[in-house]
Amino acid sequence: MGGSLGRALIAAGVEQVRGFDPDPSVGAQAVEVGAVTSAHASLAEAVAGAQIVVVGAPIGRIPQVLREVFAVTPPECVVTDLGSAKAAIVASVDEPERARFLGGHPICGGERSGVAAGRGDMFTGATWFLTPTPHLRPDLYQRVHAMVAAVGARPVAIDAAVHDELLALVSHVPHVLASALIEQGAHTTPGGREALRSAGPSFKDLTRVAGSNPPLWADIFLSNRQAVAVALADYRRRLAEVEEALHRGDRDALVAFVARAAEAREHLRRDWESGDTHPWRIVVGVPNQPGVLSEIVTALGHAHINIEDLSLLPSSERGGELWLVVHGEQAARQAAQQIESLGYGARLDGE
Amino acid sequence: MGGSLGRALIAAGVEQVRGFDPDPSVGAQAVEVGAVTSAHASLAEAVAGAQIVVVGAPIGRIPQVLREVFAVTPPECVVTDLGSAKAAIVASVDEPERARFLGGHPICGGERSGVAAGRGDMFTGATWFLTPTPHLRPDLYQRVHAMVAAVGARPVAIDAAVHDELLALVSHVPHVLASALIEQGAHTTPGGREALRSAGPSFKDLTRVAGSNPPLWADIFLSNRQAVAVALADYRRRLAEVEEALHRGDRDALVAFVARAAEAREHLRRDWESGDTHPWRIVVGVPNQPGVLSEIVTALGHAHINIEDLSLLPSSERGGELWLVVHGEQAARQAAQQIESLGYGARLDGE
Repeated sequence: MGGSLGRALIAAGVEQVRGFDPDPSVGAQAVEVGAVTSAHASLAEAVAGAQIVVVGAPIGRIPQVLREVFAVTPPECVVTDLGSAKAAIVASVDEPERARFLGGHPICGGERSGVAAGRGDMFTGATWFLTPTPHLRPDLYQRVHAMVAAVGARPVAIDAAVHDELLALVSHVPHVLASALIEQGAHTTPGGREALRSAGPSFKDLTRVAGSNPPLWADIFLSNRQAVAVALADYRRRLAEVEEALHRGDRDALVAFVARAAEAREHLRRDWESGDTHPWRIVVGVPNQPGVLSEIVTALGHAHINIEDLSLLPSSERGGELWLVVHGEQAARQAAQQIESLGYGARLDGE
Repeated sequence: MGGSLGRALIAAGVEQVRGFDPDPSVGAQAVEVGAVTSAHASLAEAVAGAQIVVVGAPIGRIPQVLREVFAVTPPECVVTDLGSAKAAIVASVDEPERARFLGGHPICGGERSGVAAGRGDMFTGATWFLTPTPHLRPDLYQRVHAMVAAVGARPVAIDAAVHDELLALVSHVPHVLASALIEQGAHTTPGGREALRSAGPSFKDLTRVAGSNPPLWADIFLSNRQAVAVALADYRRRLAEVEEALHRGDRDALVAFVARAAEAREHLRRDWESGDTHPWRIVVGVPNQPGVLSEIVTALGHAHINIEDLSLLPSSERGGELWLVVHGEQAARQAAQQIESLGYGARLDGE
């Protein structure tokens, strides 16, 4: 992921993308494939003078690497990461550094490993979750937001715990389900016949993600163990209801079960297809207080409103203006309403 | 499915493919789109003089339609069906008709409805399960086997109960899982945000089959309720084990879980890629007894050995020869061994 980000940043015109990896051969390879503009012999050397430091590391290692980065960078340098579960990482950052740490998680196709596997265009159109806390400096949020937008991704601010619950539902639990399904198919042998060998296209769809990179995924599950366990328990309860309907021979319940899934699919399809991309600017009057930007962008993230662009106007001592661009009139009006409900004045530009 | 079979049979050179549907407009449409050579006003008229009658109907209706077909066809006419669960249908056929009923189930891409949705090439390379009983006349098995092979599918004989357990594992349970997953995603809203709207490509893969045709799938689940409930309970147990590993923070157990899935996937991939297609003929001496053919073809089906071609040589009173063609030397030797273990003499042709 780090390698892909480097390529995308270089393609977007960033002049210096400096890399460090504990394994020097990875650094050399990153230079060779064009994933960084230079590789360095130490972390301190790589991050010297950086505007943004992006930590890409095995998820269990991220808190330790963050501490190392904080130790060798000044307060003006914002630090972000690419870990796929966020609450534990955010909680690991101590008070003084919370002003300049912003958790991040780009949602891209496959989780591949290795700098050579990277692709510069993999962020185009992808959701990139950001988990700002009230302690974060607004200008540093803006800086990371701009980097994310520069590589073509959509920054979506979200509470770290909400992020982890969402990812449990749409990614971590599905991975568990796929692995459990293929294992069941491999180890159940009615009439001596391996069930797996009768698998058709729909079984293949369901198990495509099964078994990818066992240590990586074990660590992802562990880093989000609470939310994954809760979502799995809820899912098992849903399956138990289907089982009970089968035992009762309750056709109505089974039809209703599949019909609810059909509705959800239709909802999802409409959502994917809704494509009003006319840009609207929302101008928000914001007081000069910590946490206001985090509060606003997180509220919009939770309300499914994508912020396409974001700028903070130089503010007086009392306060300033936050300019947000969103796509589509409906989303813009909804965003303005949401912001007003938080107690801030918002107007659609041009009204 | 019936419409696709009609097209495939016509494309294979079958002169008469006669159709009947309780709704006359469906019959007319079937003629128009080339799914039958003629449509008839009554079942009796349609099946008059037929070599094979294929019943395609909603699964709950199949036993009744079979009784209607048996009532208007002579003992020389073999009857088969396309239902996706087999044990209940096979059990519904009474003693005298068991000699000429052979349950069938082609495994093709999507379960689409309607004669216009049919495609003539959808059987190419598809597994077509056949569930012969010991009562079935061998020449009638051969007749259906030849029809299945003529449309490009691979006939696989299998015990009806084993079929239902397999289908529960590779099709019915996966459909339940997909529907439960999308429903969970639609109805779980961490931080007020619909989980479904954060779904990425892997979630889409897992839920592609969710919610398709609620009444059709409710009936499929019900027609196989015993096997589906057993497989679901087993699956829930597997999920509970993952949950326990998460609660314990047991990284080794989680790595092992994903690694077992990876192994199963690799096994499946190798299986799909193994493609020795050199044909071998196995000549089997068979006594003139009922049930011998069913016994042999079912044993090979359970052992994952595909019978590409099958012929019965005119037999004396004592017995005759069964010729089987399978692809690949390994499969041929395995088949011969399997047949010998049942007590019949088998030799590979040319040895």
